[in-house]
Amino acid sequence: MSDPWAPISGGVTAPQGFLAAGITAGLKPSGNPDLSLLLAPEGAVCAGSFTTSLVRAACVDLCAARLQASGGHARAVLTNSGQANACTGERGLADSLTATAALAERLGLEPEQVLICSTGVIGVPIPMDTLVAGLDPLVAALSAEGGEAAARAILTTDLVEKQIALEASLGGRPVRIGGMAKGSGMIHPDMATMLGYLSCDAGVPAEVWQAMASRAVARSFNAITVDGDTSTNDTFLAFAGGEPLAEGHWQALEQGVTAVAQHLARAIARDGEGATCLIEVRVEGAADEAGARAIARTVCGSSLVKCAVHGRDPNWGRIVAAAGRAGVPFDPEAVALWLGEHQLMERGQPLAFDRPAASTYLRACAAGAYLGGPGPVGDTVMIRLLVGAGTGAGTAWGCDLSDQYVRINADYTT
Amino acid sequence: MSDPWAPISGGVTAPQGFLAAGITAGLKPSGNPDLSLLLAPEGAVCAGSFTTSLVRAACVDLCAARLQASGGHARAVLTNSGQANACTGERGLADSLTATAALAERLGLEPEQVLICSTGVIGVPIPMDTLVAGLDPLVAALSAEGGEAAARAILTTDLVEKQIALEASLGGRPVRIGGMAKGSGMIHPDMATMLGYLSCDAGVPAEVWQAMASRAVARSFNAITVDGDTSTNDTFLAFAGGEPLAEGHWQALEQGVTAVAQHLARAIARDGEGATCLIEVRVEGAADEAGARAIARTVCGSSLVKCAVHGRDPNWGRIVAAAGRAGVPFDPEAVALWLGEHQLMERGQPLAFDRPAASTYLRACAAGAYLGGPGPVGDTVMIRLLVGAGTGAGTAWGCDLSDQYVRINADYTT
Repeated sequence: MSDPWAPISGGVTAPQGFLAAGITAGLKPSGNPDLSLLLAPEGAVCAGSFTTSLVRAACVDLCAARLQASGGHARAVLTNSGQANACTGERGLADSLTATAALAERLGLEPEQVLICSTGVIGVPIPMDTLVAGLDPLVAALSAEGGEAAARAILTTDLVEKQIALEASLGGRPVRIGGMAKGSGMIHPDMATMLGYLSCDAGVPAEVWQAMASRAVARSFNAITVDGDTSTNDTFLAFAGGEPLAEGHWQALEQGVTAVAQHLARAIARDGEGATCLIEVRVEGAADEAGARAIARTVCGSSLVKCAVHGRDPNWGRIVAAAGRAGVPFDPEAVALWLGEHQLMERGQPLAFDRPAASTYLRACAAGAYLGGPGPVGDTVMIRLLVGAGTGAGTAWGCDLSDQYVRINADYTT
Repeated sequence: MSDPWAPISGGVTAPQGFLAAGITAGLKPSGNPDLSLLLAPEGAVCAGSFTTSLVRAACVDLCAARLQASGGHARAVLTNSGQANACTGERGLADSLTATAALAERLGLEPEQVLICSTGVIGVPIPMDTLVAGLDPLVAALSAEGGEAAARAILTTDLVEKQIALEASLGGRPVRIGGMAKGSGMIHPDMATMLGYLSCDAGVPAEVWQAMASRAVARSFNAITVDGDTSTNDTFLAFAGGEPLAEGHWQALEQGVTAVAQHLARAIARDGEGATCLIEVRVEGAADEAGARAIARTVCGSSLVKCAVHGRDPNWGRIVAAAGRAGVPFDPEAVALWLGEHQLMERGQPLAFDRPAASTYLRACAAGAYLGGPGPVGDTVMIRLLVGAGTGAGTAWGCDLSDQYVRINADYTT
């Protein structure tokens, strides 16, 4: 399938009918923007994916419950950054209810139409007076050009803001998808949350949209691995609202939704603490896509592989050993392995490859300067693993592991 | 149950009837001892546990097949250190067969009674001439005092040798259990293998012995987590041979077998690259032992928890967040948490604890100098997590994650 999607500017407010805002309410000691709002057009549907951790914040429970009760409909999502509102007991849920009710009143909506995401320090309640006092200026700042401000106000320890928008012509009219995310891959002390938001100005039935968003999450946010620690607050929310899109274009729409989600997920992995490069692992020849992705994630998540990439060491032994413990059956004698354009293994055994050239490839990626050969250019280290003759293929993303990561996460003192 | 077991010297040759040897055959460029032999008395049974990795060395296949065919009987195990003989194709199996046949001839045994373990660099075949030339001096060196030499010759990147022996009076006679292991916890480049050996001079039926050894492995070697990378060669072999022990003493025997295995497993975790302390996580109140241990392992394996311990940061948020993603159901509202004698959480919420005192506790452990309070003393950081009212309890061990670990594993260049 050819790709009809092209990048445009505007982030989550690129799609028609979406408004957003981001302001400094005073929740963060740093004085950085800390209150963000995304407002979808009337009748919008909303799909959600949430952390699988048993220990999850009250705001996550509230979002999940409201989307289930409404059959996948919501109009707005408020994000506060600074306090995660996790492990805060009964007060946590009460504060989430208060915040969404106060915002709903100002937007002329029912409380049930408003969702909330929190990110920041675990175990610390939200200063509710400060949050509520911020709602009037937040609503006043709503704008069709507010995507960038909204994307900035959801950040915590991120080094860069993460947003994207794509446009395609589907059924003779423009369709736009926007996205923003936060999460610095490897997780800063207690600021662990990954948040992702997507907006789309095509109308799609709620069940179709939820299924589409769930598949996109599996191929993006759930295909990145950073240090393996799942947050108490991880949330992805995707809004779609606008003129209905004919069923014949749903497949093309899903292509765009997946591309936006993958862009945001890669940006999170790339922003990992202390990371110098993105690692992309592509597994082919597995029995199915899920198995291929599971192998890819295990390779991406191996501390030894991550250290080897950081050390610019083309260490095939670590890659194949990680693949072997993924819990997915394959024939070790069928394994072939490539690092960039360098083939390191064939039929389960090491080849005599050009080791200095492979190491030079890793160094070029780390410098963001790899320009040639098959696979991505720039700062992406490409690992390709063939594990058999099956049709299952899957990709996962991660980043290298540096001594800087340990220093950031060890030297922090609560 | 009271503990009848007391430490004695002698390692794997402490039990009566066991002989061992370790020599330098020239397999390692370093000139360190590299060929080790353990010989069990006639009629001995042997239990085995092997790596779950799909990519496993030929020697592992051979051990597993021979133990299955013999119904759990073997007399000797040869260990060569320097080359792992993994990813070496058909030659790998041929070399394992050759080595065991040549040793069997010298010992007057059938080849099927001899096992082999290899550890060292993956993808590199064993220099067979060197190995075979070492067999005569190895057999000549066999001795009832050879435990320590054998324990030295199985090491690769380990900083310290790992051995132990215990003795108890069971049924009016002394029973002895010896053990040795190698594995430096966090894994040196391509030298990933964990090997463990146990000897016992009590006679036990093969099926009983295998079941006993499997339970002990679950509570020891399978309860340590270092950097999550399972090796191609991981093997545990337990030999028992001597006067039959009455069934009434099997439970006491298992207590000793478990203690020996746990000592060796803890020693491997403690010897982790760049590690400054052992971390022991005890989970109580789960539905069953396996669930409790799964939670404990997840906490032990969390990079964020490991970094926090290294930074001497009593970071309860990371511990409970890791527990929440273990995949084991529990009630987050029931969680209570202790670090040493400091309680950090109660009923799912943080307590106002003495943060400097908790940090001082971590610093004392890292200095190997923690002397008081409940839980282990010395260099063990004790984390205790209560997750409900169930009767399931389990323990896991790991070590802290230091920037030194990353440097060791990144700076290595193949």
